Amino acid sequence: MTYDLNTAGDAAVVLLSGGQDSATCVAWALATFTRVKAVIFDYGQRHNVELAAAVAIAAAARIEHEIVPITGLRGSSLTDHEREVTADGGMHGLPSTFTPGRNAVFMSIAAGVAVEFGAGNLVTGICQTDYSGYPDCREDFRVAMEATLNAALGIDWFRIHAPLMFRTKAQTVELAVELEAMPLLKHSHTCYLGERPACGTCPACVLRLKGFAEQGVADPIAYQQ
Amino acid sequence: MTYDLNTAGDAAVVLLSGGQDSATCVAWALATFTRVKAVIFDYGQRHNVELAAAVAIAAAARIEHEIVPITGLRGSSLTDHEREVTADGGMHGLPSTFTPGRNAVFMSIAAGVAVEFGAGNLVTGICQTDYSGYPDCREDFRVAMEATLNAALGIDWFRIHAPLMFRTKAQTVELAVELEAMPLLKHSHTCYLGERPACGTCPACVLRLKGFAEQGVADPIAYQQ
Repeated sequence: MTYDLNTAGDAAVVLLSGGQDSATCVAWALATFTRVKAVIFDYGQRHNVELAAAVAIAAAARIEHEIVPITGLRGSSLTDHEREVTADGGMHGLPSTFTPGRNAVFMSIAAGVAVEFGAGNLVTGICQTDYSGYPDCREDFRVAMEATLNAALGIDWFRIHAPLMFRTKAQTVELAVELEAMPLLKHSHTCYLGERPACGTCPACVLRLKGFAEQGVADPIAYQQ
Repeated sequence: MTYDLNTAGDAAVVLLSGGQDSATCVAWALATFTRVKAVIFDYGQRHNVELAAAVAIAAAARIEHEIVPITGLRGSSLTDHEREVTADGGMHGLPSTFTPGRNAVFMSIAAGVAVEFGAGNLVTGICQTDYSGYPDCREDFRVAMEATLNAALGIDWFRIHAPLMFRTKAQTVELAVELEAMPLLKHSHTCYLGERPACGTCPACVLRLKGFAEQGVADPIAYQQ
């Protein structure tokens, strides 16, 4: 099996959650690489509407996608549906939605998908600005994870791209406009309560709406009332 | 939820595959930490006999164990049973049993198990001596992975211990003798062909037998003829 920078450097796998950020990342990847595939993780999300949104985004982008079921994650209100969603119910007082090790699991499995697809690049929507303090969304995690995957694969050219890392939500909206990504964002889902039309009042909806408002752009999804 | 070095420093989760190395690691962890739990991954191994061996080792060690099903791994003859087991059929001419990203997935999921168990330590049998060249069994991978998990968890005291890293198979047998681990090794399984009694002729059996022979110790498992 051939897997080298020459063949893999221009191909990428995007981690597509179905949210606004990963939808923007699909547009960024299409503008950056020749071959793009989306990987969608089914890890017992609270809301299947996220998976449906991810599939719709991949379809709208006309890229190949694969839904990979992931078991074994634990310890958050995202995966344990008995747990209440709270702003401080997780480890170290992090939001209850923090799943320890989650992004490391996602990136590691995505790396296997990338090798199979012949891609030397992952694209992820993780972002340390405007986020809820999740440590595995920060730049130091991205750098360490990239080093780990290169060590795991025995190479030095595997890259994790996080084009939104230092953007505010408003700047992410700006990028989406530049990339003409609204036809993808139209299918994205953000609401923590899983409502569609979105509730517009949960912390995730509020953050999303604030970003569009600051940029003076209309959010293409529907909200209640 | 409290998770700090004070409470978690003396507890460990051992990644238990059911092989000789991870059985030795259980004994090492019991000699090193106060609270020990085994995590056993069910990832579609070619041979369920490995899982049964892992459970038997945990039972013999009288430690709690958990079997965590893992999906999403791909690309090797271990997970794709249609593929032939060959010495050079994997990426970069690695053995066909190399599953890209596998140990990164295992460590990341084990980290979630460790947080839930209140443990700040993982113990793994990875070893860069005598191995088949798997890049994710080497010290540079361990170091990078440890940094990644600390970044992912937002702490700096999470440790990955690999007590066998620089040991030959014979030195691992020596350690097992020192730790009086033969009652655990008696339940271990190594044979790539999944045979029990072990075939004694596949590369894994040959390597195991060589280690015992060099150390002048009897292997406690049964072999065909």
